[in-house]
Amino acid sequence: MVRINPHYGKLQSSYLFSDIARRIAKFQEANPGRNIIRLGIGDVTQPLPPACIEAFHKAVDEMAMENNFRGYGPEQGYDFLREAISENDYHAVGADISPDEVFVSDGAKCDTGNFQELFASDAVIAVPDPVYPVYVDTNVMAGRTGAFVNGRYDGLVYLSSVRENNYVPALPDRPVDVIYLCFPNNPTGATATREQLSEWVAYARDHKALILFDAAYEAFIRDPEIPHSIFEIDGAREVAVEFRSFSKTAGFTGTRCAFTVIPKTCMVYDDAGNPSPLFNLWNRRHTTKFNGVSYPVQRAAAAIYTDKGKRQVRGLTDYYLKNARKIRGVISKLGFYCIGGDNSPYIWIQVNGDSWAFFDRLLNDAAVVTTPGSGFGSCGEGYIRISAFSQYEKVEEAMDRLQNILG
Amino acid sequence: MVRINPHYGKLQSSYLFSDIARRIAKFQEANPGRNIIRLGIGDVTQPLPPACIEAFHKAVDEMAMENNFRGYGPEQGYDFLREAISENDYHAVGADISPDEVFVSDGAKCDTGNFQELFASDAVIAVPDPVYPVYVDTNVMAGRTGAFVNGRYDGLVYLSSVRENNYVPALPDRPVDVIYLCFPNNPTGATATREQLSEWVAYARDHKALILFDAAYEAFIRDPEIPHSIFEIDGAREVAVEFRSFSKTAGFTGTRCAFTVIPKTCMVYDDAGNPSPLFNLWNRRHTTKFNGVSYPVQRAAAAIYTDKGKRQVRGLTDYYLKNARKIRGVISKLGFYCIGGDNSPYIWIQVNGDSWAFFDRLLNDAAVVTTPGSGFGSCGEGYIRISAFSQYEKVEEAMDRLQNILG
Repeated sequence: MVRINPHYGKLQSSYLFSDIARRIAKFQEANPGRNIIRLGIGDVTQPLPPACIEAFHKAVDEMAMENNFRGYGPEQGYDFLREAISENDYHAVGADISPDEVFVSDGAKCDTGNFQELFASDAVIAVPDPVYPVYVDTNVMAGRTGAFVNGRYDGLVYLSSVRENNYVPALPDRPVDVIYLCFPNNPTGATATREQLSEWVAYARDHKALILFDAAYEAFIRDPEIPHSIFEIDGAREVAVEFRSFSKTAGFTGTRCAFTVIPKTCMVYDDAGNPSPLFNLWNRRHTTKFNGVSYPVQRAAAAIYTDKGKRQVRGLTDYYLKNARKIRGVISKLGFYCIGGDNSPYIWIQVNGDSWAFFDRLLNDAAVVTTPGSGFGSCGEGYIRISAFSQYEKVEEAMDRLQNILG
Repeated sequence: MVRINPHYGKLQSSYLFSDIARRIAKFQEANPGRNIIRLGIGDVTQPLPPACIEAFHKAVDEMAMENNFRGYGPEQGYDFLREAISENDYHAVGADISPDEVFVSDGAKCDTGNFQELFASDAVIAVPDPVYPVYVDTNVMAGRTGAFVNGRYDGLVYLSSVRENNYVPALPDRPVDVIYLCFPNNPTGATATREQLSEWVAYARDHKALILFDAAYEAFIRDPEIPHSIFEIDGAREVAVEFRSFSKTAGFTGTRCAFTVIPKTCMVYDDAGNPSPLFNLWNRRHTTKFNGVSYPVQRAAAAIYTDKGKRQVRGLTDYYLKNARKIRGVISKLGFYCIGGDNSPYIWIQVNGDSWAFFDRLLNDAAVVTTPGSGFGSCGEGYIRISAFSQYEKVEEAMDRLQNILG
């Protein structure tokens, strides 16, 4: 008899964004005429940069000709893309990452979700709270947690990210093995300073722990003091992995390309404590369970690193940051405490009440979709997240509606 | 201290095709002038069908315009593709599969590799021998096996596929929970009759086992009596999952699109024996760890199902089957026993000796790359696989070389 992985049964009944989608559908059915403005899920709205489109078409044409056709590519990605990433995302900020330490993939969701497979089943996992649900759910599925009790899974170490610590969690109060960090943070929009990240790197070095650093939103950083990469921190090459994505940087949510960086000097340990390069483990996983990213998509992604591409991508992120400023301005004027929106496309708003109730109020009274903070963890209760990924005109209209019902 | 998943340590040192690549590189270095003909790895050589190229370009253009732009799509794939699959791949052969039972993905390698996550860690797994290594390695990584001893992993049930049974394995001699089957087979090229598949379905129904049916090569079937899908067999909807890919069908190895079919009536069981739909489990996995296939790639894939696309795809598979006939003809004339190559792009050749030695002989004496059968399991010892994925001219040249050294 084929029996189920019993850990799936611990998962909460549905994924946050499915819940939201259900409520929207219900509202739309009851109010067929209402024009809903969606500032919930962090999905881009602006088209791909022209430089990417041009490279995309060119690569599709190559696939039409026998002498240029590409079959299986390297699972780790083509050199042209790995070299552009190494040069522009790392060397340019003084981080020593070589092209062959870059693994190109089809999404940071996949990579952050799959990465936990490399670790022992009893590894102690630390996750921020609030948190991007994928880090948690994938560890639940792998059996690294107990039951879900009072909004938290037994066995996970939650790193509270709250107003008192400026949404940058303190070091854990007990030993942990694997630490998920995300800056600029999803959902809070908080960023971490060089000093704060240095503390985490020092902790990881002292405890032979590993930092899984999600930098999917680094392209929104404007403050020159804030690091874009964990690898700008001395000593991080031994204890950290970094996840990045073209989704939010260049509008690739529907085009699919991302990458993960694993320095060859980053070590993990066998049960006897002998070190072993993490790189080799992920390489084995990646080549066994993945077959590379679509060649035309990799060409489109590489175009981001051309001069034209860089300008266009900067234009895209500037566009969303203008939305974010608008949102932050109105929300602050309405008297709510909020963070994010300056170096991040997300604004995290303390609503002084129940998250889902506030979500429902904005949906029902203003037809504006947000994301209830409690969906990201118990420290998110009392917050909502507003996403700046939308058209500016819609953001303006949404903010007018919020001023009407909340002002 | 972050400890490794200890099961990775059981994996054999390297993936078959990396081994081959190393030997080729060594040969090429020693013989820089030799023109190597590669009939090893099953990678297509012919360009994408024009219908796919046209749809691909059109979709890229949509991504350039704000009003047509697509961000995140449904993780399960767009309806336009799922409907085309349901209609053309299933309804057309009398198999009752609805569009919402189709999960679009970026590769059958990923899907066949990831699927085992859904099952209990002590599930008893049956795999063919010889076998596509991904089925085995991913179960090793998940801890479902013991050590590798005499060419086999302890704990797996190997289904010998040998000349005596026409390379279609007999039912297992002890209870198993999950059964991987692949027809037309990789690596042997063998096909299974309706009667043989019916026996497997009956076995699975009797034992509440699950069949994971890999049909990545079904487009090469020409014999009208051979089923293309496990779902052509009565009763399969309750006990089978099917994996398919556009890689070999339409030249998508570098473009990346595939799909997995899970009937909603297919059940798996909790420890108490209560049934639960497998569909829900995979849906949870797919939405948590995957973010959908690139939109333009899905459009390119859907074009395969247009009238033009169907003709062009048939032309592609006919082209490779012509290669296969040529290979089979020469190999047979040389006095070797072989199968495959009629309803499959692979020819499986009994070489009456050590697989790697024969591989090395063909590489060193004829500069022809094949795949040693032993790389696919112990029943593959004494065989090599020749792939028909190449240009016809190269196949002719390779066969001339083989006649020279073996004739």
